[in-house]
Amino acid sequence: MRLLPFVALLILFLPSQVKTAELSDASSECLDCHVSIAPGMVAGWQSSRHARVSPLESLKKPELERRVSAKWVPSDLVQSVVGCAECHTLNPEKHSDTFEHNGYQVHIVVTPEDCATCHPVEEKQYGQNLMSHAYGNLLNNSLYQDLVQTLNGVQFFDDGHISIKPASPETNEDSCLSCHGTRVEVKGFDSRETAMGEMEFPVLSGWPNVGVGRINPDGSKGSCSSCHTGHRFSIEMARKPHTCSQCHKGPDVPIYKIYQVSKHGNIYSSIGKKWNFEEVPWTVGEDFTAPTCATCHVSLVVTPEGDIVAERTHQMNNRLPWRIFGLIYAHAHPKSPDTSVIKSKAGLPLPTDLNGEPASTYLIDNNEQQKRRKILQKVCLSCHTQQWVDGHWARFENNIRTTNEMTMTATELMLKAWETGAAKGLAQNDSIFNEAIEKKWMEHWLFFANSTRMSSAMLGTDYGVFDNGRWYMAKNIQEIYDWLRMMLAVNSETSIEEKLKKK
Amino acid sequence: MRLLPFVALLILFLPSQVKTAELSDASSECLDCHVSIAPGMVAGWQSSRHARVSPLESLKKPELERRVSAKWVPSDLVQSVVGCAECHTLNPEKHSDTFEHNGYQVHIVVTPEDCATCHPVEEKQYGQNLMSHAYGNLLNNSLYQDLVQTLNGVQFFDDGHISIKPASPETNEDSCLSCHGTRVEVKGFDSRETAMGEMEFPVLSGWPNVGVGRINPDGSKGSCSSCHTGHRFSIEMARKPHTCSQCHKGPDVPIYKIYQVSKHGNIYSSIGKKWNFEEVPWTVGEDFTAPTCATCHVSLVVTPEGDIVAERTHQMNNRLPWRIFGLIYAHAHPKSPDTSVIKSKAGLPLPTDLNGEPASTYLIDNNEQQKRRKILQKVCLSCHTQQWVDGHWARFENNIRTTNEMTMTATELMLKAWETGAAKGLAQNDSIFNEAIEKKWMEHWLFFANSTRMSSAMLGTDYGVFDNGRWYMAKNIQEIYDWLRMMLAVNSETSIEEKLKKK
Amino acid sequence: MRLLPFVALLILFLPSQVKTAELSDASSECLDCHVSIAPGMVAGWQSSRHARVSPLESLKKPELERRVSAKWVPSDLVQSVVGCAECHTLNPEKHSDTFEHNGYQVHIVVTPEDCATCHPVEEKQYGQNLMSHAYGNLLNNSLYQDLVQTLNGVQFFDDGHISIKPASPETNEDSCLSCHGTRVEVKGFDSRETAMGEMEFPVLSGWPNVGVGRINPDGSKGSCSSCHTGHRFSIEMARKPHTCSQCHKGPDVPIYKIYQVSKHGNIYSSIGKKWNFEEVPWTVGEDFTAPTCATCHVSLVVTPEGDIVAERTHQMNNRLPWRIFGLIYAHAHPKSPDTSVIKSKAGLPLPTDLNGEPASTYLIDNNEQQKRRKILQKVCLSCHTQQWVDGHWARFENNIRTTNEMTMTATELMLKAWETGAAKGLAQNDSIFNEAIEKKWMEHWLFFANSTRMSSAMLGTDYGVFDNGRWYMAKNIQEIYDWLRMMLAVNSETSIEEKLKKK
Repeated sequence: MRLLPFVALLILFLPSQVKTAELSDASSECLDCHVSIAPGMVAGWQSSRHARVSPLESLKKPELERRVSAKWVPSDLVQSVVGCAECHTLNPEKHSDTFEHNGYQVHIVVTPEDCATCHPVEEKQYGQNLMSHAYGNLLNNSLYQDLVQTLNGVQFFDDGHISIKPASPETNEDSCLSCHGTRVEVKGFDSRETAMGEMEFPVLSGWPNVGVGRINPDGSKGSCSSCHTGHRFSIEMARKPHTCSQCHKGPDVPIYKIYQVSKHGNIYSSIGKKWNFEEVPWTVGEDFTAPTCATCHVSLVVTPEGDIVAERTHQMNNRLPWRIFGLIYAHAHPKSPDTSVIKSKAGLPLPTDLNGEPASTYLIDNNEQQKRRKILQKVCLSCHTQQWVDGHWARFENNIRTTNEMTMTATELMLKAWETGAAKGLAQNDSIFNEAIEKKWMEHWLFFANSTRMSSAMLGTDYGVFDNGRWYMAKNIQEIYDWLRMMLAVNSETSIEEKLKKK
Repeated sequence: MRLLPFVALLILFLPSQVKTAELSDASSECLDCHVSIAPGMVAGWQSSRHARVSPLESLKKPELERRVSAKWVPSDLVQSVVGCAECHTLNPEKHSDTFEHNGYQVHIVVTPEDCATCHPVEEKQYGQNLMSHAYGNLLNNSLYQDLVQTLNGVQFFDDGHISIKPASPETNEDSCLSCHGTRVEVKGFDSRETAMGEMEFPVLSGWPNVGVGRINPDGSKGSCSSCHTGHRFSIEMARKPHTCSQCHKGPDVPIYKIYQVSKHGNIYSSIGKKWNFEEVPWTVGEDFTAPTCATCHVSLVVTPEGDIVAERTHQMNNRLPWRIFGLIYAHAHPKSPDTSVIKSKAGLPLPTDLNGEPASTYLIDNNEQQKRRKILQKVCLSCHTQQWVDGHWARFENNIRTTNEMTMTATELMLKAWETGAAKGLAQNDSIFNEAIEKKWMEHWLFFANSTRMSSAMLGTDYGVFDNGRWYMAKNIQEIYDWLRMMLAVNSETSIEEKLKKK
Repeated sequence: MRLLPFVALLILFLPSQVKTAELSDASSECLDCHVSIAPGMVAGWQSSRHARVSPLESLKKPELERRVSAKWVPSDLVQSVVGCAECHTLNPEKHSDTFEHNGYQVHIVVTPEDCATCHPVEEKQYGQNLMSHAYGNLLNNSLYQDLVQTLNGVQFFDDGHISIKPASPETNEDSCLSCHGTRVEVKGFDSRETAMGEMEFPVLSGWPNVGVGRINPDGSKGSCSSCHTGHRFSIEMARKPHTCSQCHKGPDVPIYKIYQVSKHGNIYSSIGKKWNFEEVPWTVGEDFTAPTCATCHVSLVVTPEGDIVAERTHQMNNRLPWRIFGLIYAHAHPKSPDTSVIKSKAGLPLPTDLNGEPASTYLIDNNEQQKRRKILQKVCLSCHTQQWVDGHWARFENNIRTTNEMTMTATELMLKAWETGAAKGLAQNDSIFNEAIEKKWMEHWLFFANSTRMSSAMLGTDYGVFDNGRWYMAKNIQEIYDWLRMMLAVNSETSIEEKLKKK
């Protein structure tokens, strides 16, 4: 008797599991070999929605439920499920990594431009996302390029002094570019012995990589699989906070750690296993009862009554009035996702000058900030009262002010250090990121002020207090002050330098 | 046709899900609007036990299984389920945040005193819990108030010196008080345009907040929703360690991180998803096979044979002989939860003097310690042998001694620093928490000694070794020693101070 | 029609839950009392495979599916399930902790040699694992013994100087030996009042402990329950990363933290709950779609077609060409698991000299490295292409080179410090691990270089950048350089030493 409902349930699930769309002949040929060459990769795809549903079926869904944003899909792709060949043979002429492979023009790196065949709105939005420009925003900015060098370059001690050797491409790819994205280029072609005999493949530099601003062999930017992990490309994974943790957990952006110990993260960890992470649209209170990262920043969220709380966005910053990490001072979001165009009043490639003055021409104005604030607050308001939300935001924006003030103090100490010769800076034509005292200053904004702001934004208290929060800001200013004085003492004793030289 | 299996399923589950108690008319009226104003909040409540069970039903349960501790519940509350109005209109005369809202006297902040209508034993126990006094224990202690100021205040560099501006209320609420609790007060009343037209609401300061020692608009202390997250108020969540992580994960109290990497935490993470977190009482070996925080510190735990292993307590320290964090030295627990009454022999508002001597009058004695030790050990003994437990405790109490000795050494270095002028302390009428060397000393006890003790208590090894454990204690003493000498060198060079002044 | 297999499946599961093997009379007698003495312990065992299956049944399985590696099992053990007595009365003559207990010769500590009765291959492999020698590798190495003392010993400040008192056994057991393993010895016998009247028990030192290199009362090394947590001894737990986290999460070996934020860890956290952690062998793509620690380092992994990807190993380093943590420089793995036999060219008990030169006689050669590299890469290749894997390894081995170079620079600064008297080292017959500047140098290799390497190996980016990665290496070298100069300044001012003395 206990069996009956389960029997019924099985019958219910049957129809949805019967594949109505089939695999294309081309993809079928791929699988013939690859099922035994990299079986885990194939298995990932087999459990994906791509393996079960054709674009045609997806296009028939009501608009809110649709996962494809294309109005139409090319006729040769629309009827079969989305298999290997459907993606890896798209736009062959644009891909410098295209090669002849068993009669097909295959490319290795599937790119946002490929994905845009079915998901053009997401691709376009993502192009407006700072993340898609993460490679150039780092390396086309002279100051940030110097930061990368002083971070990744190997240091040598020679005759009393420390020098830095430029970092190799492998090191940068293994470090900053792992998240920011590498430049993937075809270095040549090489033939290799395989299980199927000798075959020729393109040889890629900057590979592998799934960084958010990856420069692809077709010239496009980004990698959808940063978040929609291949080859399952699951919405469930992208909606879970673990995906964001891949890049957002270190002291520079401790967002994942903050989320984990926030009330929201607590609810997710405690009862999130009962939630529905697959449903589109995503219904607050029904599918989930506390937000993950995606809820506030990306997803199409609706109420149980079907009203839209937030439109889906892959631009993300259109829900964000402030840019609170990665730069010296928090500031209004840049207008362009390409931040390498920014020049401050003092001529620095920064959205604020060292004295905190914003490069306003390049940043969104108060009206745009207010618009974005309202969009994000609407998500808050689906579970909280207006007064709750107002109180929360008042503290957050007070936090932005005070962390900026604390950074100003740290910066004034550095200006004094450069002025008095306790450290060498721009005036001495030296890096402002290489000495110990400069690195303490950098930690002030890059770690502690950032952490304090994010902690407030997402309610992960201790990251604003003892865990790289205000405690560290307060301590750091005192340490910079002492270190500055100690360097002055050391520099005045010329005998010390002599002692460090080779004998 | 799609319905059939669910019907079958419903029939199967029906008996336990049929509501025998109904929603009150008042709460029903609340829901009429609020279901669309903050649907996530309502959805949380709908999935709660409160939404399904009336106090009357709860009172009928066998005593061990009961979740209400009241002997009786007022007749106007006893028959309907616990809805919005049942809590938000209780004790209107006591609540300064009561306001007229669509014909009801509603208040915003539901307090332990409100919850005590059905849960009086828990409320009373919690009143004996240090946590309920967390606000005053921090702010009514002159030394700790200074610690808060030097932590949260904005520092300025001016004419060669650093000064601190007092922290704003918003900053304190966003920082320490987020966990300790804010003072929630009615600043006035304001009218606001809402979806239902213009309405008047009380304007609260210190809001929002769910800190453990929150001072409420009815004068009560604490917030049950610190752990029993609103509006589900789930026992499952309160029993899971993620709830405690909201406040207990930073370097000052890394309990959650320690638990995660302990054998207990490993078992929870690996197989805890199969456990029953809803059952009352909670049966060791049946409902769970390794403890969470609640098991050892709060829950009513029984054996499969029904014997009581531990009585439920919301006082918590009645299972704890030692207070091992937050103060300079570990010591026997204070007698009163209000620690602001304590005065050491030297007149400091501390449970031990700087030389480690305990303010014994205010602390529990050996007998009481032994009583509490036995209560906690009985939980250990439900899975471990006596010898195992004895060995564990011997190491833990050895750890308390050695971490106190290490703190003594750090403190002696500070006394020397204050004596020699390397830092300014009480004798110079200066804060003992503001300078770099003082902050290193604070980290010794506030971070490293604490972490080392908790790591031993809960078997999260590395937090007693390399992760803010003994490694950091050992290194910190050496750094304080060097820093002390460096400050003496710097202070003897008067030219340095000159260089830092404005030119 | 689709129903049939499920019905069949249900029927299929029935018989396996009926116990065909019974509990032995001896174990039954154990349970009579212990079910109420430590019910959680008994409940753990009851949910184990040991409680359901006899060795005889296990021996009948096809070889790949077998969990016992013995060819035969003694006849008195083969037919009943594996209960208390089966393990706790094995090899009584070898166990110095054997005692008479209700008519049985019982011992407390079950050891790898006991487990080898059914699992001899695993025991033998584990004996070749560095972990099994973790006790001696730490304490039979004069340099590492000094490291332990300077880490765990209590420091005292007396008359201007800091001295270290040797750490007590309790402290070492509570610290390093918690993971490395204690020496468990019988100190004597003692009688104790129990629920069953007065009874005599052996009194053990070094107990409790489940460290990986525990020295047992039968002379064997290790503890199977380090990973196969008692008394469930579950393969599910051993395969989940939380088990490894018990010892591998601190700044010295942040493997668990790195895994968590890697793509692999993300997949595990997001969808791992759907995987099968019980199946033997473990099929990639079917049972799991991303690796846990065990997948790459321990488990028997097969493809869906039944081909072996990796043989099961409890030696673990036979899949590892490099030893990347715990020592000054990364190097080829030692040949012997007993590393206390190693002597460098300069006579140090280290696999590389301070200048990085490897003690090659004691380390595996290039051929063996290449063999191990291939074994591990075969696991990678079950989900990734050859080019992907090659690119990943090229970066990882570049990382080994650059982190070693950075460590060389830090070491050269230390050599200069010892030479100039800024610190006291081997030439001054002083510890090289006790002073602040020396601890900074140690963090360079023990924390930062390690973290950077592991981050690359396992793709947890930020642990190679900002979270104890390259950022900390770069900063640390600059801090060591400044500290060195500051110590020279301080040491040249003799008045400072005077000021610190007792007055």
